[in-house]
Amino acid sequence: MINKLFLILVGVGVPLSVAGTLLHWPSVLMFVIYCLTIIALASFMGRATESLAIVLGPRIGGLLNATFGNAVELIISIYSLKAGLIGVVLASLTGSVLGNLLLVAGLSFFIGGTKYKRQTFNVFDARHNAGLLIFAIVVAFVIPEVFSVNMNEQATMSLSIGISVVLILLYLAALFFKLVTHRGVYQPTERLADQNHEEEVPEWSKKTAILVLAAATVAVAYVSEHLVHTFSEVGESFGWSELFIGVIIVAIVGNAAEHASALVMAYKNKMDITVEIAVGSTLQIAMFVAPVLVLISLLFSTSMPLVFTLPELIAMVTAVLLMISISNDGETNWFEGLTLLAAYVIMGIGFYLL
Amino acid sequence: MINKLFLILVGVGVPLSVAGTLLHWPSVLMFVIYCLTIIALASFMGRATESLAIVLGPRIGGLLNATFGNAVELIISIYSLKAGLIGVVLASLTGSVLGNLLLVAGLSFFIGGTKYKRQTFNVFDARHNAGLLIFAIVVAFVIPEVFSVNMNEQATMSLSIGISVVLILLYLAALFFKLVTHRGVYQPTERLADQNHEEEVPEWSKKTAILVLAAATVAVAYVSEHLVHTFSEVGESFGWSELFIGVIIVAIVGNAAEHASALVMAYKNKMDITVEIAVGSTLQIAMFVAPVLVLISLLFSTSMPLVFTLPELIAMVTAVLLMISISNDGETNWFEGLTLLAAYVIMGIGFYLL
Amino acid sequence: MINKLFLILVGVGVPLSVAGTLLHWPSVLMFVIYCLTIIALASFMGRATESLAIVLGPRIGGLLNATFGNAVELIISIYSLKAGLIGVVLASLTGSVLGNLLLVAGLSFFIGGTKYKRQTFNVFDARHNAGLLIFAIVVAFVIPEVFSVNMNEQATMSLSIGISVVLILLYLAALFFKLVTHRGVYQPTERLADQNHEEEVPEWSKKTAILVLAAATVAVAYVSEHLVHTFSEVGESFGWSELFIGVIIVAIVGNAAEHASALVMAYKNKMDITVEIAVGSTLQIAMFVAPVLVLISLLFSTSMPLVFTLPELIAMVTAVLLMISISNDGETNWFEGLTLLAAYVIMGIGFYLL
Repeated sequence: MINKLFLILVGVGVPLSVAGTLLHWPSVLMFVIYCLTIIALASFMGRATESLAIVLGPRIGGLLNATFGNAVELIISIYSLKAGLIGVVLASLTGSVLGNLLLVAGLSFFIGGTKYKRQTFNVFDARHNAGLLIFAIVVAFVIPEVFSVNMNEQATMSLSIGISVVLILLYLAALFFKLVTHRGVYQPTERLADQNHEEEVPEWSKKTAILVLAAATVAVAYVSEHLVHTFSEVGESFGWSELFIGVIIVAIVGNAAEHASALVMAYKNKMDITVEIAVGSTLQIAMFVAPVLVLISLLFSTSMPLVFTLPELIAMVTAVLLMISISNDGETNWFEGLTLLAAYVIMGIGFYLL
Repeated sequence: MINKLFLILVGVGVPLSVAGTLLHWPSVLMFVIYCLTIIALASFMGRATESLAIVLGPRIGGLLNATFGNAVELIISIYSLKAGLIGVVLASLTGSVLGNLLLVAGLSFFIGGTKYKRQTFNVFDARHNAGLLIFAIVVAFVIPEVFSVNMNEQATMSLSIGISVVLILLYLAALFFKLVTHRGVYQPTERLADQNHEEEVPEWSKKTAILVLAAATVAVAYVSEHLVHTFSEVGESFGWSELFIGVIIVAIVGNAAEHASALVMAYKNKMDITVEIAVGSTLQIAMFVAPVLVLISLLFSTSMPLVFTLPELIAMVTAVLLMISISNDGETNWFEGLTLLAAYVIMGIGFYLL
Repeated sequence: MINKLFLILVGVGVPLSVAGTLLHWPSVLMFVIYCLTIIALASFMGRATESLAIVLGPRIGGLLNATFGNAVELIISIYSLKAGLIGVVLASLTGSVLGNLLLVAGLSFFIGGTKYKRQTFNVFDARHNAGLLIFAIVVAFVIPEVFSVNMNEQATMSLSIGISVVLILLYLAALFFKLVTHRGVYQPTERLADQNHEEEVPEWSKKTAILVLAAATVAVAYVSEHLVHTFSEVGESFGWSELFIGVIIVAIVGNAAEHASALVMAYKNKMDITVEIAVGSTLQIAMFVAPVLVLISLLFSTSMPLVFTLPELIAMVTAVLLMISISNDGETNWFEGLTLLAAYVIMGIGFYLL
């Protein structure tokens, strides 16, 4: 049913997106078309990822998903850096962190929770993620904010580069830890047994799934890039500031892919994958996309320090503390989802009024 | 024994309070009379609540208690708002949060811990409360503080109203979660069995208990209101600032009711109720009383934004982090109580010297 | 093998340290000699402590170790206070906290983790320590920072004295709790049984171990004191600021003793002792050494308030949050150690560039 709807949406949306872009249709109209198209494409990405997840196991599937979602953001941000729009890049990084931690996870926990009374996920992963969230956002993002107050521009940039290198190295070490030295070490045995019993049938074969995933990713990237150019006009039409667009709108649309598949997984009670997508994507943004952008910015005329505005930083830090206190027990329910959503609404109002 | 003492104190204190108020006795004398009377009345409230708790179950009992304790504060604060004393209202909200989290819980854990080596309470409730404490105080109180620095007065007020509405809605959702969709879901089965075995006999019948509770609440409200008017003169006599009186004195006296019954419950090793009173009352202050006061203030000439002073905010945030790190395992002992009390003393010294 | 090397290093290092001090050899040369001598002496302290730990039990052993390590720091700091170097004392307190929490624990977890896949320690101790870390650093250190902004110098000093007294009293209460009222209460029974089975043979007798410990401590104190006087010249030679030397260099050398024995214990999979050393030492610095120094400073011409610089405070607070989120489950692995080390590197870069 809904899959057919999305198929139609893609079949109509992609050609309309291309046509509208070439024919310079009005920005607000294109904004709506782009958004709907991305959401439809994202559902294909979600289903393709799910097929792959069944074939390759839930962890690799989740990792794949987060990678594909954030590849789009990385590309958009590089174009923005090239144009010297450092504030917009930092705002959209903030928005991705808030969007994944509060909106994606919140909506997933809420929707999943309306179907299941209690949903559980691997508590070891939750704690592993908590440590990394604290490291990346509470240590690595807060330190340059506080220390740079008494620093000149050059020292601030040196500190940003140093921290970026440390972040990337620790991110690689985390992958090595998860996929090599401690693969399956923290997997509860009863769950492993469970998974063997399931024997789910993937919707698509591995080959088809990869093709669908690749095609949808390219299409999302194309549409996303043009979507960004509608923002300034849409902002004027609706009275939205650049900061609000960067933090809220880019994040919602840019993370639609993760959003869709995290929701699907929550609805299927596969909370391990939902959390892997929401929190894993946040960690990839904070520990990989952000520091890579700092290093890439050195190639351009204006370099980007790892210094957020205070509202951005406090929003991220408090979001991390909320997520950890909610997810630390490896259990979720609809109310915990609603709490995350409520925090997102509060921050949204704040950024809107700023 | 002690119940007789309290009976005498009420029998003497209430008439003296009325007489002293009408005859305008010296403020410092009245201050002492009012305080003792409230403490004695609070013991009746505690016993009435306990009787009701046995009849209605521990959760509803705890909820009842928190409601009655904070009704007093809500009434006092509305009178203060009417008089334009916004600083005093914010200070007494801060004081209630600190008083409940650090003083009430601290003294209860300490006193209970001198009798029992280890006291336990429902760890699911602890985690549920931790999430809400982070949401209400670390997210909903910190965001307007940081964001309002760069906002004009009108935007600050809009943000405060928006956050207040979100807080109240989530508070109602929390009640719905606790009393309807997830009632008893997180209750460990062995404890349920335990409770059935107990078969405690209430001191008073349901009817008598309600009557006692109602009468004591009315008397506490009457005395409390007049107590407030002695503060400025008492402050001058003892050299206390308005902030110190708001944060420390109002909180101790205003929360005497919860204080007394939380202590009684801790001494009886019913830590579920103790925690429900201390933390539940904090949450009611932060998620219901505070936002309702923001909305009510719109009716008066001066509206109150949800923006605390930085010392108030930092005191509340650090108190929340301390409480969570202490209560997160569902166990207490005398030393954990002492730690909370030590934090209260430190903050008390700070507000005294400010 | 390595023990012989350290024996030679001590046999050569101590006479060279004395000779070089008396003959005024170049500072940079003496810096290297002093450092190597201390590290070698520390290995003897570690082995002596280990022998004592076997005889007296792991807890007293760990306590002993932390005491001996911090006695050195206390003596150095008193000399610094006498010379009015308040900034250096606060910086080296910060450095000890960061060094113990991030460097000592990080390296121990990492090295231990390369040998064992998962290492565990008493989860009750971890939670007990977490509460105290939050109390000491997030409450007792943050409150004077925030409150003193609006205070005159005298009120700031009064607040510092009050907090110092509370810290020392709670530290004594913590010892009373651990050694008297709740001794062994939180020890899992299977572990107690384990320990009885082990029957390890100490390297030295109790008498010899105490003699070695005493002699090594005296020698470390002598060398450390002279080491400090080389810092200003070494700083000039290498371009290091006083803050960087205080926070990073003093901490690494001053905590070499704990460092060495924590590592040895981690390698022997005795994580209870490792954590006792790293976190216990941090707590001793924050709850005992720091407040004692504040009180002692009243005897000198310049008194020291308990007010750190903002970078120092934020570094300590974020280090505490990271340590708690990593250690709260009573388990470690190499990646958690690496995360702590990465945080130490980030802060090191920050203090270097400040």
